[in-house]
Amino acid sequence: MGKFVQLIPFEEALTRISSEKWKPLETEVIDPEESLGRVVAMDVYASEDFPAWNRSLVDGYAVRSSTTAGASETNPLTFDLNGIVEAGASSFTEYKGDSCTEIYTGGILPDDYDAVIMAEDGERDGNKIRIYGAIDAWKNVERQGDDLQSGAIIVRKSNIVRPWHISAMVSSEVEKLEVYRKLKIAVLSTGNELFPGSTGHIRNTTQMLYRNYLNRTFMDTCDAGVAHDDYREISSMAADALKKNDCLIVTGGTSLGGKDEVPEAISALGEVVFAGSMIRPGRTLTLYIVDGKPVFSVSGIPVPSLLSFDIFFEHFLLTLIGLKHYRDTVTGRLSQALTNKAGYAGIYRVKLTSGEDGNRVELIKTKGTGTLNSLLNSNGTLLVPGHVEGLDAGSLVQVKLFGDAT
Amino acid sequence: MGKFVQLIPFEEALTRISSEKWKPLETEVIDPEESLGRVVAMDVYASEDFPAWNRSLVDGYAVRSSTTAGASETNPLTFDLNGIVEAGASSFTEYKGDSCTEIYTGGILPDDYDAVIMAEDGERDGNKIRIYGAIDAWKNVERQGDDLQSGAIIVRKSNIVRPWHISAMVSSEVEKLEVYRKLKIAVLSTGNELFPGSTGHIRNTTQMLYRNYLNRTFMDTCDAGVAHDDYREISSMAADALKKNDCLIVTGGTSLGGKDEVPEAISALGEVVFAGSMIRPGRTLTLYIVDGKPVFSVSGIPVPSLLSFDIFFEHFLLTLIGLKHYRDTVTGRLSQALTNKAGYAGIYRVKLTSGEDGNRVELIKTKGTGTLNSLLNSNGTLLVPGHVEGLDAGSLVQVKLFGDAT
Repeated sequence: MGKFVQLIPFEEALTRISSEKWKPLETEVIDPEESLGRVVAMDVYASEDFPAWNRSLVDGYAVRSSTTAGASETNPLTFDLNGIVEAGASSFTEYKGDSCTEIYTGGILPDDYDAVIMAEDGERDGNKIRIYGAIDAWKNVERQGDDLQSGAIIVRKSNIVRPWHISAMVSSEVEKLEVYRKLKIAVLSTGNELFPGSTGHIRNTTQMLYRNYLNRTFMDTCDAGVAHDDYREISSMAADALKKNDCLIVTGGTSLGGKDEVPEAISALGEVVFAGSMIRPGRTLTLYIVDGKPVFSVSGIPVPSLLSFDIFFEHFLLTLIGLKHYRDTVTGRLSQALTNKAGYAGIYRVKLTSGEDGNRVELIKTKGTGTLNSLLNSNGTLLVPGHVEGLDAGSLVQVKLFGDAT
Repeated sequence: MGKFVQLIPFEEALTRISSEKWKPLETEVIDPEESLGRVVAMDVYASEDFPAWNRSLVDGYAVRSSTTAGASETNPLTFDLNGIVEAGASSFTEYKGDSCTEIYTGGILPDDYDAVIMAEDGERDGNKIRIYGAIDAWKNVERQGDDLQSGAIIVRKSNIVRPWHISAMVSSEVEKLEVYRKLKIAVLSTGNELFPGSTGHIRNTTQMLYRNYLNRTFMDTCDAGVAHDDYREISSMAADALKKNDCLIVTGGTSLGGKDEVPEAISALGEVVFAGSMIRPGRTLTLYIVDGKPVFSVSGIPVPSLLSFDIFFEHFLLTLIGLKHYRDTVTGRLSQALTNKAGYAGIYRVKLTSGEDGNRVELIKTKGTGTLNSLLNSNGTLLVPGHVEGLDAGSLVQVKLFGDAT
């Protein structure tokens, strides 16, 4: 990359990601019980009603509601107790118009019965139950399919499987689930200073940060090693990593001037999608496509590098597999004014605090480039578009929370 | 538990959790690189300055700022180029008043130099650099310790380790980290209906839901098996599980009336902390203490069971290890009125949506007890205290997001 690179607008960089011909990610069919955190590849529907039977919601006496008509304080009705149903146990009693069945919470309603009188509303005398009021049909009963009807949607394509999705799939007899294969991501680090014993040796915290951040249930990361600042070495290691992975992140060697070897190394393998864009931090982030796979060339300075990468990577995931809910977005009010550099989309680290009168969004000050310190106190980021030169204190802004991010 | 149990207020249940004598959770010392998602047991401070040197923030020419005084368009000054510093490489040049050093982003500033002139602001002519303006001290330089000074806080006790905490620890030479041991949690399921071949057999989705939900990096869950509705069997399996775990969850057998075996089984092992409280759903949730360890007896109906358990368990974690940030809390506006049952704290499933004018909080309707369906569309919960009988549409409420929850 030469010294006088023409940066494209940030939005144009996103457009280029959307319109590139990425190699589709294959899907695989797995057991729903093993699907926690995976991304669903097609809409999933309940195979059977859940619950599969009418169930009692209370402890009491199951009856046919029509037989209780006319019962009142002055005209109580009496029913024969014809049996007992425990939780989960199925019906074994035969319906008779003047009979009822003792039933516990969760018990399956005997055939022909359609309501349950609460235990405290029935007066028991040996094998007889006296009631002082009528009961409506389906009172105190959860009906078959109340929770999920056969054919009801459980989880839509491109969503991440949560614990309750698994319960719903298992409860409604979904036996196979099509999910996207785990996305395999390699991180290749570059820089002479990363080699132990080199002058000015520094620890490779950038690789660590990327891998820990991307350590999610629908992705697998691996270490593609450390290359010297030598385009042949970088190119050969990158090509190796791309053989075994779906995506490559190359850290380091992105300053706009001087002797960067990464552009030469990766350009030799494929095409540039965009070489830098108007976003801060992250203006030097460059995206290549090699055999339909993305290669993100990012700065080696851990925090600003990761924050800008995350925005482009999120858009890549949206394009590749339709994943929208990568991080929660919430609205809050800026506690102070913000000045944004004209023309540049700005990524700001913020701390969002919930209060009784709303959410307060505080800018976490950064100084220098490392800015690790700023992340230690923040719980999300705010992206300000390039056409916005500033925001007043009190402005409503949308923050992406880091959430668990573990 | 008898039919006419006196439920205590929800807040009183929390107070009892706070004041119980729980067995403390041991800590262990681990490598910070292995600490992702663990809970820190003491405040962690930077051991060394980061960066450890003064570094250039740009590509350009390092100088001593005082020697540039007086430079202007009409009075340019010229400096001899005495060497080059690449990213991460250390100083090797000797300071001379009229000299400067070519330097790249991230390069370590030569001793005695205190500023970097940007490449485009210096006119190069062979080994001479001409400048047309003075530069202030520390301009374009990240100073030693700018990001983290030795002794600065990195992460406080009782917080979960995030990816950036690890980078900060490694960058500032923290070599050992004291964290809480992983909390071992066993889930014991009870109910004749859970045995294959039983009448009214149902799949054990409750255990699955608990284990998937609690499947976090600072806890380990295990399956303590399935017991019949028999207090001797339950008691013996619970005692076994408690030998190997720090916490036991017993699912099923909590309806207020009838032949529940769980209370008899667990009471035989320890003491009741509270037997039910005024919260809906979850009024039958009972907490025991056995040898200083908590036993949560919860309903076997998956979703309402988990939602109420989560509130008590979160308070238990706060009491045991001071963990506050279990789920993100954000404020939003109710999109519709809500009626709460007087005296009962209410847990409501909600969907919080961020918009340009704030966050909208929509109640997800539940029907029946299963209510799996309601969770499929929600992304958080709202807890309404028992003294609040209702909330108007437009009220500001605080929602706990599920976040990743994977």
